[in-house]
This record gives sequence, structure tokens and C-alpha cells, in this order.
Amino acid sequence: MISPVRWDGDRLVLLDQTRLPTEEVERRYVSWPEVAEAIRSLVVRGAPAIGVTAAFGVALAARESRATTFDGLLADVEAAIKGLAATRPTAVNLFWALERMKRRCLDHRMLPLDALRAQLVQEAQAILDEDVAANRAIGSHGAALVPDRARILTHCNAGALATAGYGTAGGVIRAAHAQGKVALVWVDETRPVLQGARLTAWEMVKEGIPHRLISDVAAGSVMARGDVDLVVTGADRIAANGDTANKIGTYGLAVLARHHGIPFYVAAPFSTIDPALPSGDLIPIEERDGNEVRGFGGRQVAPAASPVFNPAFDVTPAALITAIVTERGVFRPPFDFSR
Amino acid sequence: MISPVRWDGDRLVLLDQTRLPTEEVERRYVSWPEVAEAIRSLVVRGAPAIGVTAAFGVALAARESRATTFDGLLADVEAAIKGLAATRPTAVNLFWALERMKRRCLDHRMLPLDALRAQLVQEAQAILDEDVAANRAIGSHGAALVPDRARILTHCNAGALATAGYGTAGGVIRAAHAQGKVALVWVDETRPVLQGARLTAWEMVKEGIPHRLISDVAAGSVMARGDVDLVVTGADRIAANGDTANKIGTYGLAVLARHHGIPFYVAAPFSTIDPALPSGDLIPIEERDGNEVRGFGGRQVAPAASPVFNPAFDVTPAALITAIVTERGVFRPPFDFSR
Repeated sequence: MISPVRWDGDRLVLLDQTRLPTEEVERRYVSWPEVAEAIRSLVVRGAPAIGVTAAFGVALAARESRATTFDGLLADVEAAIKGLAATRPTAVNLFWALERMKRRCLDHRMLPLDALRAQLVQEAQAILDEDVAANRAIGSHGAALVPDRARILTHCNAGALATAGYGTAGGVIRAAHAQGKVALVWVDETRPVLQGARLTAWEMVKEGIPHRLISDVAAGSVMARGDVDLVVTGADRIAANGDTANKIGTYGLAVLARHHGIPFYVAAPFSTIDPALPSGDLIPIEERDGNEVRGFGGRQVAPAASPVFNPAFDVTPAALITAIVTERGVFRPPFDFSR
Repeated sequence: MISPVRWDGDRLVLLDQTRLPTEEVERRYVSWPEVAEAIRSLVVRGAPAIGVTAAFGVALAARESRATTFDGLLADVEAAIKGLAATRPTAVNLFWALERMKRRCLDHRMLPLDALRAQLVQEAQAILDEDVAANRAIGSHGAALVPDRARILTHCNAGALATAGYGTAGGVIRAAHAQGKVALVWVDETRPVLQGARLTAWEMVKEGIPHRLISDVAAGSVMARGDVDLVVTGADRIAANGDTANKIGTYGLAVLARHHGIPFYVAAPFSTIDPALPSGDLIPIEERDGNEVRGFGGRQVAPAASPVFNPAFDVTPAALITAIVTERGVFRPPFDFSR
């Protein structure tokens, strides 16, 4: 199984996603600021994977801490949580995982500090294991929505690489493929960071899933030809009403899917749902460096003098979403996640 | 004025658009097969510019010809016309310009061969001059549709570089800018060949027109924020019913514009209209090399093993087009170009 995030005895190991698909390079981390930088620079990306990584970052902070009292350790852990939370503003799984690590820390304040440090590694590992299990459940629920001989269009990478393993939207595709239902996966390249071209295409090749890579702009054309049966994407944050923040371009796909009468599914762990946010217009949208759009991989194509608008995410209104697939089952509009 | 195509005494000069925006390199051509290769490899692109370039290619073929009889010269000219017509299948201006060159040749069959050769250069130059004049008229008609403080979104490059000069959609923007009406131009980068990021952004910088470059996938988001007042694009071929072939991604933009209630304009010379084609589904769509999508600016990013679908154009149904702006005026649905 593709494992983008794993714990190796005394350190965190990340598969460097900035080097894929040409090189498979693992990087090792022993301190939380390095982990924060790895998240910021997209060595690891994808809402669930970011959450798991940040959890291990907290565990590393506790291991690094020279504190001799619980309060001292807690202060170091809280500094790490603050630093890790500042890496990416949109994915809610990040904040959820950090909060869970903090709770575990507080719950075990009576333990000797080394036992507490071990507890935090265990908690991060539990978040990882639960994520893989959730993705398998998402895959199973989602595959039931996929018709035979399906042509599925997906955006960005919500595959094994975006999670602790198996994937969310990628999990739906994997499970449907295992059931023999996938005729073709249309892979949106996903500018500006090209997660589709680099990561989803790599996963498809790796697992022998039939696919075709397209420029994002070709999605409408492919739909108009009648060559798409459903769209499935991941999510970075889902508001209580079902409005969904995901990789920039998801909203445009949802509009196109509606125009062509094609079902549009979102697949995400339940932790992606943010019950504190009534609607999507309250989701903070990260804006990234304009050089991501002016070029790629350090190679400039646009004039340096051209201003850029580079939002990393957009919000798809619940009204455009056919269903949201979680490990707890399939939710349909009007969305009520409290059941 | 930006001149992508010009005649220099005894040779054709093209501004190499594959090198923009980082380098401004002019290339000189004395034989038609080199011109065909320049069209194929996108040294020159844009439907009107391709037409003008191909016309000069025919003039060069006549100059190159060692024929001593009219029939010999005509055979050489016809071979060039056939070769030039095979470079790009979608743009109708190409076939229109080649047909016009052939007609001029036949009309002057009684002239001495050197006089006939000179006539063909004059005809190509006339096509060039008429294109610039048409673009200025398109700009004038189109600017009347642009509100004050307009935020205009455009796709690909239908600017000076896509024509003999001034531009079609770019001409509308230039004319509106000259009237002080342009608050901002949103420039779609236009994958896979990035004509927006490389060429339109370069033109905007060159002329000091306020603009912001975006990934194509951000267009929906920008519209949803209420930051777009109109969309204007060029066209490669317009069917008799108004269905319009243009750069891949245009169709998706038209669907998004309709969803947001934003006017969607097409600007093109009248020669882009193909009265022989009743509807857009009959327009041949060029498919280009998958490596355009597998890579970015010459750098490979996707797995070499991933199959690609790379249509260069899509067709926007007339029903999604608010108006088509030509040098003969503004046409609105139901489109009747015979008036």
C-alpha cells in the first residue's frame, strides 16, 4: 500500500510528494518545525494526510522537549500546535488532529513524562490507523454509487497520497476498481501544483487503473461528449450545511457536472465536517504564492511583472453536490450530519 | 504596435511566440515548408495570424518556384497550399486565406510570372492590412459593449499576437482600455500551451493594462466572488448557427458565465465564420501531442506511462453566447450572418 506518512521507531517518515512522479524519495523528521515546513512546502498535502502528519509533529515536539514538568511539556506541545496550525488555514482535519493530540496530552497529565511522550506517538498512530480504516469504509460506501463500466472524473489528488493510505475519492475509485466497475478515470491535471498529473496519475499507473490525463480545461469538453458518468473529489473542509471547500477548480467542475446532469460526489472522512461553520462562505481560503501560477517547479513561464491571484481552494455550494460519502455512510441534500 | 507577422522585402518575419515572454526573438523564412513547420510548432498561432502567415507561405512558394510556365507555377503553389492547409485543422481563416491566394493566382494567370509572384506578395500583405483594420473595427464595436470600470475575463490569446496586430478579443480590451473603461483583465493562463500566461500577460504588461493572471481553474471562483463583468474570447471557427470553436476551456467558461449570469462575448473577424458548416458538431477538433499535457514548459511532470487526451479546441454552443463581435458589427442570437 502507498504510505505517504509513517512512523519509524523514533522519527516521522514522509514520501516527498514534490518529487513525484519522477523520484520516490522518503524524508525523515525528528523536530516539529521541520514537519511544519514539510506541510507548508507540500512535501505532504491532502487534508487527511496533513492531519496525521501534524499529529506526529506534536508527538515529535513532546519527544524534543527538555521539560521536566508536565506544565513545561504542555507549553512546548502547545507551541508546536500553534506553529503547526499556522501552516495551512483551510483543511479542518489539521485543527481536529491537533485538538485531539492536545486532549490526549491533558488526559494523561498524571503520567510520567516519558510515558506521556509514548502516549502521544500512540495517539498519532491511532489517528493514522483510523484514517486508513475510514477510507476503506468510504471506498465501500462510495463504490455502491458507481455504475458498471463507469467513466469517473476526479480532480486533484484525494488518493492514498492525500491520506494515511487508500484515499477518499481515490478510495471510492480503488474500491470500485476492485469490483471491476471502472472503465476509465479522467484525471484532471489540477493546476497550479499539478497534483492530478503528478500524484493521481502516478497512483493510477502504480495500481494499473485505466486512466487518461487531461488539462483541467478539457473537463467540460469530455462531459459534453458524454464520456463522464460521475465526478468524485475529496474535501478540505465541509460546513454544517454541506458547502464544501476543496482544491481550486472543484467548484467549476460541480457547475459543469450540474450543466450536464452528471452526479457530483464528495468523499471525505467525517472529521472533515466542521459543525462550527454554518456555511461555506465562512471557510478561510488560503492564497498561495503567485509564482505557483507564473511557472511550475521553479521554471517561469509568465512575465514576472504580472500580478497573480492564486487561491488554493474554492467552495462548492451544497446545492451542487449530489452526495457526500463518509465512513459513516452517504449523506444527501439537505445535508444533516448530526444524525 | 506588436507585429507577430510581417513581410521584410524578400522574406517573412515571425515573432517566435514559443520564446515569449522571456525572449523576443524574430525568425526569418524564405520557403513555405519552413512556414508550415512554424505554424505546426506554434511559433505563430491564433486563427487570424495563421491565415496571414499561410498567405505569405504561398507567396514564398511562388518565389521559390523555378517554374517557367504558369501551369508549373500553379502546381508549385497548389502543393504549398496543400501542405500549409494540413498544418492545423480547426482554424477556418487558414483555408480562407489559402483559397484567396489561389484565386489571386488564377485571376492573374496572364501576367508574366515575376509580376504574378509580386501580386501574391501584395495579396498576402492585403490580407494582413485588412486583418488589422478588421480588428480595429472589432475593437470599436466590442468596446461599446463594455461597461465602465469593467472587470473582463479572457482566455488564451486573441490579442495582437494572435492576429496581424491589435487583436480580436484583445482588440476589444485595447479599445475599451483606450476609452478608460477597463478596471481589470483576468487572464486565464490557458493550459496546456499557456498562451494566456505567456502571451496575453506579456501584452498586458507591454501596454500597461491592469491585469491579474489566474490558473484556469480559478475562473469559477472569481466569477462566484462577483469580480467578473464580462467574458470575451476569440474564435477559431464559427459555424453558420453561431456555434464557436475556440481554445480548449472556452466552453467551460461559457457554462460558468451562464451559471453566474455574466455576458459571454466572442470576437472574431468575419472570415472566421464558416457558412458551409451548419453547426459546431461538424467542426474538426485538432488533437495535439499528449506531452503538452504531461509536461509544463518543456519539463515533464506526469508519468510517461499515463495516456493523455489533448484536444486543442472545444465547441461552445451558440445558446451560451451573448453576442459575436465582428468588423461588420455585433451579432446576437439567433445568429444570422447572411444579413
